[in-house]
Amino acid sequence: MITGKNHIGFDLSSEGTVTYKTFNPLINLENEQVYTEASDAEVDRAVALASTAFKEFRTVDTSKKAEFLDTIADEILALDDALVQVYCSETGLPEGRAKGERGRTVGQLRVFADLVREGSWVDATIDTEQPERTPFPKVDLRKMMVPIGPIVIFGASNFPLAYSTAGGDTAAAFAAGCPVIVKSHPMHAGTGELVASAIIKAALKTGMPNGVFSNLNSSGINVGVQLIKHPGVKGVGFTGSIRAGRALFDLASQREEPIPVFAEMGSVNPVVAMPSALLEKGNEWAKQYAGSITLGAGQFCTNPGLIFGIKSTTLDSFIETLGEEIEQVAPICMLHPNIHDNFEKGKATLSSQGGVSVAASYEGAVSPNYGTQKVLTVNGANFLKNPTLHKEVFGPFSVIVQCADMKELITIISGLEGQLTGTILGNDQELESNPILIETLQGRVGRIIFNGVPTGVEVCPSMQHGGPYPASTDSRFGAVGIHSIKRWVRPFAYQNWPDRTLPNALKNSNPLKISRLVNNKSTKDAIS
Amino acid sequence: MITGKNHIGFDLSSEGTVTYKTFNPLINLENEQVYTEASDAEVDRAVALASTAFKEFRTVDTSKKAEFLDTIADEILALDDALVQVYCSETGLPEGRAKGERGRTVGQLRVFADLVREGSWVDATIDTEQPERTPFPKVDLRKMMVPIGPIVIFGASNFPLAYSTAGGDTAAAFAAGCPVIVKSHPMHAGTGELVASAIIKAALKTGMPNGVFSNLNSSGINVGVQLIKHPGVKGVGFTGSIRAGRALFDLASQREEPIPVFAEMGSVNPVVAMPSALLEKGNEWAKQYAGSITLGAGQFCTNPGLIFGIKSTTLDSFIETLGEEIEQVAPICMLHPNIHDNFEKGKATLSSQGGVSVAASYEGAVSPNYGTQKVLTVNGANFLKNPTLHKEVFGPFSVIVQCADMKELITIISGLEGQLTGTILGNDQELESNPILIETLQGRVGRIIFNGVPTGVEVCPSMQHGGPYPASTDSRFGAVGIHSIKRWVRPFAYQNWPDRTLPNALKNSNPLKISRLVNNKSTKDAIS
Repeated sequence: MITGKNHIGFDLSSEGTVTYKTFNPLINLENEQVYTEASDAEVDRAVALASTAFKEFRTVDTSKKAEFLDTIADEILALDDALVQVYCSETGLPEGRAKGERGRTVGQLRVFADLVREGSWVDATIDTEQPERTPFPKVDLRKMMVPIGPIVIFGASNFPLAYSTAGGDTAAAFAAGCPVIVKSHPMHAGTGELVASAIIKAALKTGMPNGVFSNLNSSGINVGVQLIKHPGVKGVGFTGSIRAGRALFDLASQREEPIPVFAEMGSVNPVVAMPSALLEKGNEWAKQYAGSITLGAGQFCTNPGLIFGIKSTTLDSFIETLGEEIEQVAPICMLHPNIHDNFEKGKATLSSQGGVSVAASYEGAVSPNYGTQKVLTVNGANFLKNPTLHKEVFGPFSVIVQCADMKELITIISGLEGQLTGTILGNDQELESNPILIETLQGRVGRIIFNGVPTGVEVCPSMQHGGPYPASTDSRFGAVGIHSIKRWVRPFAYQNWPDRTLPNALKNSNPLKISRLVNNKSTKDAIS
Repeated sequence: MITGKNHIGFDLSSEGTVTYKTFNPLINLENEQVYTEASDAEVDRAVALASTAFKEFRTVDTSKKAEFLDTIADEILALDDALVQVYCSETGLPEGRAKGERGRTVGQLRVFADLVREGSWVDATIDTEQPERTPFPKVDLRKMMVPIGPIVIFGASNFPLAYSTAGGDTAAAFAAGCPVIVKSHPMHAGTGELVASAIIKAALKTGMPNGVFSNLNSSGINVGVQLIKHPGVKGVGFTGSIRAGRALFDLASQREEPIPVFAEMGSVNPVVAMPSALLEKGNEWAKQYAGSITLGAGQFCTNPGLIFGIKSTTLDSFIETLGEEIEQVAPICMLHPNIHDNFEKGKATLSSQGGVSVAASYEGAVSPNYGTQKVLTVNGANFLKNPTLHKEVFGPFSVIVQCADMKELITIISGLEGQLTGTILGNDQELESNPILIETLQGRVGRIIFNGVPTGVEVCPSMQHGGPYPASTDSRFGAVGIHSIKRWVRPFAYQNWPDRTLPNALKNSNPLKISRLVNNKSTKDAIS
């Protein structure tokens, strides 16, 4: 069922000379299937097809587009055990996680199908003419969101389904009316090919144009670089490291025609434990955070990597309990030997910094590629002066910063890089009596949490997944939920355009029955 | 009343050593007032003040913010004749234009005041908790738009009021909750200082924090470069040339923390004259386009610089009539000798290209700095192979391209750079029978016009002023109307946040009575 080939539109193709295999970290062995990296000519063909497909896909009927999205979901489910098996063999993750992530992926596709079917997302805005106005008559103007063109999506290592081939980025781009070219993640090329085949089946079943989707295998940086530099590509979605994300952003910005890159990159997700939280619920939070830090071997972008408290005996006892709790967690396998190696290197680097102590470290014997958790402590002064301690270590790892006082804590927060999330543990009264802390934390993050853990990204309209740089390259957008569609659309205005030739969203009769802003009033009514 | 100093927050300051004067192109003489360019220290102080002011301004009460915007409008009107006089002396533009642009500027400020007062622009999105949900309970999530931080606005040469100091960019940034630092345009430093004084007065009257606004004089590139590189600056608005806009974009992209730049740059605003338009209304369009090309000495970004038709006797007679009409227009003074020089150079360069003929050229004697109109013709083949002919000549100038057939015309359109506008002249039937032409033109522009002229940018919600690069650096935003506020805001989510400490826009009781998306339904109701 898996061929190792690229999907160039509706064709399977493997003209390239570079081949590679995926790796099963659980048994520490390569998987057998050979994948062929897309050649330069195949990349060009995928972009050319996408550009041609865009002409048709951009104006495809909303109900057909919704059907396409729903059918992708159906086809992914139809892959059934074959998908779950290859997913597990390429990630070392358990079946439950595979099925959970599949559920989320299918859910995301259906949410975008519903969004497209309902139709109001295009932000139709109409100002009717006033021919009698003086000194100048007012012309008829109508605006709506239109897709920007072919989008390149880079698969994420840690979410082979939900943030990769048919993940949220792709679903949003399709919903917008943009063809998608996926640069498949080398660590899960098989999962990627299966999901790609589901998308192609859905495209054929629902009559979408050839080129609406391509899936390109790639083991190095060539395919990605060629795609980003290609004049036919109009936008990029990426989830991964700051180094890679920034490199893509730089390439895209240096093009003759710069294109938007939404890269969701690193985050250490600072947590501030206020005195009351430690006094009243210290043990409970220690238990919850031991779970959050080690969840999925810490391989989530919302993993809590920094915990701040004010030096006190209650903070000491929180650290002690967290240490005890986290050492009891059984380590699990990480996604890939490379990720495991980077984790070990990051742990070692941060552990060797001045003033750092070990609060907890899992030292038992483990199988290869298992991520053994570690928690460090450091005082505020040492943390402040050492940027290395601010860096993300991707895995089950966290640094607890013992601040001298609230002033030092706020100074530290204000100097942090941009983050996806920030969390406050405490009581209502502390929230109200520490406005500067709250404001400062808000300024550094995209989502602020009260009394909870940052892991667990609910897919709903009010979620914000993104934040000030380097959490993402553009804090004005997000990567999760219906509003992520805004990354791939632009406003387009029709002036004095005959009603019959307007898109349905802008016609007087409002045939789609969508919400529109007509003469500055929100309404679903037709224009008489 | 004009001091030549910088407004650094509430203080007037002139510590720099670089001085300059503005120029009255109408009498071809420098104006007397000396302006002092902001020093490095003054730039730093303005940014530091803005960063501090942001902490307060970002959460200022909506009614206070609206009052601030309205009061700016009042204070601009209160400047009365003093403003009109200095405007005219720095631009050579007539009093009527000054007053018209002032009306537009004041109108823009009031529109944003209304937007802020109404409040729904923050896109409040709420998903309430579902503690009983399985397998995981759903947390309470609430999202709204928040300002991104201090914004730098570069004044535009051709709109000293509406796109400069208190223009649309500034009004949008203030409405968003962002402090503004204006890099004053050297050609109208006096107009800039007067308007800046109106903003400062309004800030003091309505209790806005010191630093909410600064106005920095600048004669070269230093002040702008320092501002864009400053870590305290979080976004940039610019209207001007492609060369300058691209330089700013590059600097902003290369920062350690890249920041968004919305630059509204060049556009030649292609017009396609279909056969019926020339046959049925050729003389009428010739008259209208003679007016549009020469309006305000052609110094509008929506000036029609390219007109396409299919070789025919009707096209010949359209060209002839347009030539006759446009030669009868009395030339007027351009904004500045530099702009006039560039216009003359651009005209000469394009006139000397291969295959180009002169359709019309005003050859009468004129005063210094007057822009004498010219219209060239060229066939499609020569136009296609010569990128120089695609470039904007800022002034009363246009090129008419005589295409061999519709196929060549479409090929040319598809190869054009991104544009603010595209126009079709013709009848309904031609619109319906030329879908490829229409689609192709749509793909290159931000606004498409049927049977009209591109000049005249209505300020209303459905206007789109922006377009594919290089019309603007990011086609996903626009520079005119209420939606331009989206450039300066980012989504921010609160998870499990106590109702009492939420911003009013997200509180259960909906005290602002705004439209919100609650559990995926648009409503103004409170949450019970």
